[in-house]
Amino acid sequence: MSPTNPPPPDPTSVPPAVVHRLSLYLRELRHQMADGNETTSSSQLGRRLGFTDAQVRKDLAHFGQFGHPGVGYRCDELVEAIRKILGTDREWRVALVGVGNLGRALLGYRGFHQQGFRLVAAFDADSSKIGSKIEGVEIHALESLAEVMSTQQIELGVVAVPAAEAQAVTDQLVAAGVGGIVNFAPVTVTVPEGVCKVGVDLARELEQVTFALANRLRET
Amino acid sequence: MSPTNPPPPDPTSVPPAVVHRLSLYLRELRHQMADGNETTSSSQLGRRLGFTDAQVRKDLAHFGQFGHPGVGYRCDELVEAIRKILGTDREWRVALVGVGNLGRALLGYRGFHQQGFRLVAAFDADSSKIGSKIEGVEIHALESLAEVMSTQQIELGVVAVPAAEAQAVTDQLVAAGVGGIVNFAPVTVTVPEGVCKVGVDLARELEQVTFALANRLRET
Repeated sequence: MSPTNPPPPDPTSVPPAVVHRLSLYLRELRHQMADGNETTSSSQLGRRLGFTDAQVRKDLAHFGQFGHPGVGYRCDELVEAIRKILGTDREWRVALVGVGNLGRALLGYRGFHQQGFRLVAAFDADSSKIGSKIEGVEIHALESLAEVMSTQQIELGVVAVPAAEAQAVTDQLVAAGVGGIVNFAPVTVTVPEGVCKVGVDLARELEQVTFALANRLRET
Repeated sequence: MSPTNPPPPDPTSVPPAVVHRLSLYLRELRHQMADGNETTSSSQLGRRLGFTDAQVRKDLAHFGQFGHPGVGYRCDELVEAIRKILGTDREWRVALVGVGNLGRALLGYRGFHQQGFRLVAAFDADSSKIGSKIEGVEIHALESLAEVMSTQQIELGVVAVPAAEAQAVTDQLVAAGVGGIVNFAPVTVTVPEGVCKVGVDLARELEQVTFALANRLRET
């Protein structure tokens, strides 16, 4: 075991918060590259995000050693390394379930494509929507979910249905063999062991703002 | 300085990740209360979220001492304490700018109301929408933003316009005296010092899922 090339630790033991920060580092690296920087440092990387250089180094150390003595990090190298860690160095084929307002917004959200997520099929219970296309994505009947997921080789499902329908739709995705689910419905869904699941709370980020505002108001 | 009642540290030095985890603890506490639990412990609180008990204790210690010897945390007490810390123990009046698909979805998103955010006005550049109501919220012309924000005593702005318009809309909100901005457009906006800003990346949570999937695939 060479000290300059330690084996990466078990990735399943990495806390979700670290994965979350890797996403932020990736975005910051892209900003810096867009600004013309070829190399960066842990303190440069952390500054705009409000993290200490020690935090940045510790987070990256979970996955190996990425810096170069006297140079710091090469931006393009680190971008590739983080994308590989996050699993976004490849394309993922994604199905959207629920083509209401939120579903339509997600179909048009260019952030997905930028990050390697390809929405290849959408599903809805409303028969008047079936067969039409939004943003080039065909809307299928919920009944054909298993079939379309198989023929289209879909691995991830995005749930954007009303809360009351979220669990039933999740069960359908699981039965169709989905690997992971991102749930935008404001309710917790359960999945069997072996299926990954993340819930998105659209209101959560507001608490970051109210926290800052409330504490500033207390100070003054 | 009594050891049982240390002064809370400077809240402005609290990392955003801690604030983010407080949101998660709050949701977990509500789950536990819904399950009929009156008290909980740091390990119970962390278990379902995948955090160690040490992490939970450390996060809460930023803000004071909340446990009771031999009892643990009283759920209702801790919920109130965290809401106060997050600034969600009061109602916040919020304006939405941009009534496209995402804006409509946000107007109907019950998660906002559950957490004390009251969307009281919406704005759009499309004159055909002006004067109509969605989910009971009136849509105003962008030109009347400053006036409506003042008369409606709005403190927070949610930006849900296309990327190309996000900065201009943010500038308008800032000029109208907004305290904080939550930006859903897939672009970084800048605000002057003194205004809080959080960007929401709808695709970020997908990376949590691909990270887990990619690393599981590597294992097998």
